[in-house]
Amino acid sequence: MATQGQVITCKAAVAWEANKPLVIEDVQVAPPQAGEVRIKILFTALCHTDAYTWSGKDPEGLFPCILGHEAAGIVESVGEGVTEVQPGDHVIPCYQAECRECKFCKSGKTNLCGKVRLATGVGVMLNDRKSRFSVNGKPIYHFMGTSTFSQYTVVHDVSVAKIHPQAPLEKVCLLGCGVPTGLGAVWNTAKVEAGSNVAIFGLGTVGLAVAEGAKTAGASRIIGVDLDNKKFDIAKKFGVNEFVNPKDHDKPIQQVIVDLTDGGVDYSFECIGNVSVMRAALECCHKGWGTSVIVGVAASGQEISTRPFQLVTGRVWKGTAFGGFKSRSQVPWLVDKYMNKEIKVDEYITHTMTLDDINKAFDLMHEGGCLRCVLALHP
Amino acid sequence: MATQGQVITCKAAVAWEANKPLVIEDVQVAPPQAGEVRIKILFTALCHTDAYTWSGKDPEGLFPCILGHEAAGIVESVGEGVTEVQPGDHVIPCYQAECRECKFCKSGKTNLCGKVRLATGVGVMLNDRKSRFSVNGKPIYHFMGTSTFSQYTVVHDVSVAKIHPQAPLEKVCLLGCGVPTGLGAVWNTAKVEAGSNVAIFGLGTVGLAVAEGAKTAGASRIIGVDLDNKKFDIAKKFGVNEFVNPKDHDKPIQQVIVDLTDGGVDYSFECIGNVSVMRAALECCHKGWGTSVIVGVAASGQEISTRPFQLVTGRVWKGTAFGGFKSRSQVPWLVDKYMNKEIKVDEYITHTMTLDDINKAFDLMHEGGCLRCVLALHP
Repeated sequence: MATQGQVITCKAAVAWEANKPLVIEDVQVAPPQAGEVRIKILFTALCHTDAYTWSGKDPEGLFPCILGHEAAGIVESVGEGVTEVQPGDHVIPCYQAECRECKFCKSGKTNLCGKVRLATGVGVMLNDRKSRFSVNGKPIYHFMGTSTFSQYTVVHDVSVAKIHPQAPLEKVCLLGCGVPTGLGAVWNTAKVEAGSNVAIFGLGTVGLAVAEGAKTAGASRIIGVDLDNKKFDIAKKFGVNEFVNPKDHDKPIQQVIVDLTDGGVDYSFECIGNVSVMRAALECCHKGWGTSVIVGVAASGQEISTRPFQLVTGRVWKGTAFGGFKSRSQVPWLVDKYMNKEIKVDEYITHTMTLDDINKAFDLMHEGGCLRCVLALHP
Repeated sequence: MATQGQVITCKAAVAWEANKPLVIEDVQVAPPQAGEVRIKILFTALCHTDAYTWSGKDPEGLFPCILGHEAAGIVESVGEGVTEVQPGDHVIPCYQAECRECKFCKSGKTNLCGKVRLATGVGVMLNDRKSRFSVNGKPIYHFMGTSTFSQYTVVHDVSVAKIHPQAPLEKVCLLGCGVPTGLGAVWNTAKVEAGSNVAIFGLGTVGLAVAEGAKTAGASRIIGVDLDNKKFDIAKKFGVNEFVNPKDHDKPIQQVIVDLTDGGVDYSFECIGNVSVMRAALECCHKGWGTSVIVGVAASGQEISTRPFQLVTGRVWKGTAFGGFKSRSQVPWLVDKYMNKEIKVDEYITHTMTLDDINKAFDLMHEGGCLRCVLALHP
């Protein structure tokens, strides 16, 4: 490898400050240190979490940084002690690590590995608490331990899922965040059973993945809730078989759904990140057993609330991160499921562009017709 | 039976209005109608829910009424169609019915039978939507479908648990509410596993029953949290092996417990009914898997809140009513467990009195040294 051990200069979209357009810069990417992997990112998608941090509303957001966390690429080189991947491996970088050694990984109860979180939470690498990115000597923070809006990135080895070498990277990049989050919310967190009634609040990529997860789990009624009627046509393809627009009703949406389902749904999913909707999602659940899963990420400082009676009478309030999937172990399995045509991926991709168009791509995200926009980084 | 089919005149403690002393009256108790059972109540205990409704703070409280819901007695007579109990059977009246026929009972997921709730919620019997109690012709409302502060009461047959005829009624009356609520919160709702760390907020009868449940489930650390240091000595007998008094700390109690347990407890239980404590109980749970169960009943209109991040990072918020026990099926089983010395009951009884002293008994409830006061109704 000509580049191994060398600093690579490549293009990346740098967020110099909050809420200002990203700038395509020549970025220096240092070689991977012990336990690190440098990846040539081929395709990255955009997700609302990128937009949220970029907006400046995330109090933990650090600038300048390189955003991006839903991507796929090929290992360029590996640091000392890295044994599970090697140059040439096709991989998906995972913002949720899996070290298989920490208290969390060993618990068998959660996917929330804690090994590198203290470093990734503050935009640096664990080894030396520094960034591998710089522009003319000025360090640029990492983001979510992935920073995929760059032609090359450096991640911790515990954050790399090695996938099938024939998987189309321009598609399976989506298996780095939104699609697994929705599927896993149903399969791992809620554990929806056949015959269940389900309500899904918000029919974006995550909500649609919840619908698909519910359909494959055998749910009978899959009720989509969205303010945009146009979403229903798309949502049908993912399994939504009833649609409710809160604007069409005077009653609170939880009451509408309780009435529609003879007491409430068995499972509900909030896929927006709106705390009022999280409450509605809980309260539209059936007394005695209804379970509501928070999937969306609310803005910092916001709080959920309800009367405790809602829980005392048997409703359960949960949440999920990356759908409860263990990233290194299960992302490859999801890729295989996609290749076996057991789960959808292509259908979420509504737009494709190149890195140069990244600001345009962010504008698109706020339009109803856009689910996922995939950027080619080496077109 | 000399009294069968007749109106019985007996003593009962009537709550004529909110927050005024109960008055021992000669009450007329009508014979049971179809699907009803008239019970000679021998012993009743007092519980905080009685005090709450009596205080007038319960917006659904109706006056005049006969309070009381934790008791034991003997069937005096049964109405038409009642087949599962007969005169002479020893029974515990259950405020949570179990009809075995409704959507809730058949679900296999909850104990919250819905059959008689619409009637018991408004202080009457289902058959004719009227009360069986009167004083000089003036109807007196039922309470929680039990009204055990009376020498005789009438309840729905789906609310009667037939128990072992040799069980000491002056003890097992406690198996009508508080003790099962605590045990079941651990066994049925949280499903605590051996080796778990547990925090219990509030060391009254319910909290102590949670401790005993946790101990029998094999929990390692059972941390009691209470503002009264004297509670620890009693609590040790029930399994509490660490004690934290929030007054001894400057930090929020959730942080104290997180620090004490390397990240939080596996299970927490709120046994007070205080919405701020409910939040602390959730937030002292371990990231990734900690489960908090609301057992206490908050005052009407109060709300719980937290940041959704608490749930997204893997904590689960639940509640329980009557500990998730199916009343008619499982109260007899609990009585048997008591008789086999597998669960404590005697140890909760700190005071015994007669019905005449009921106002004094309520005063005692607010003193730290009182767990349960049992009243003899036919001394």
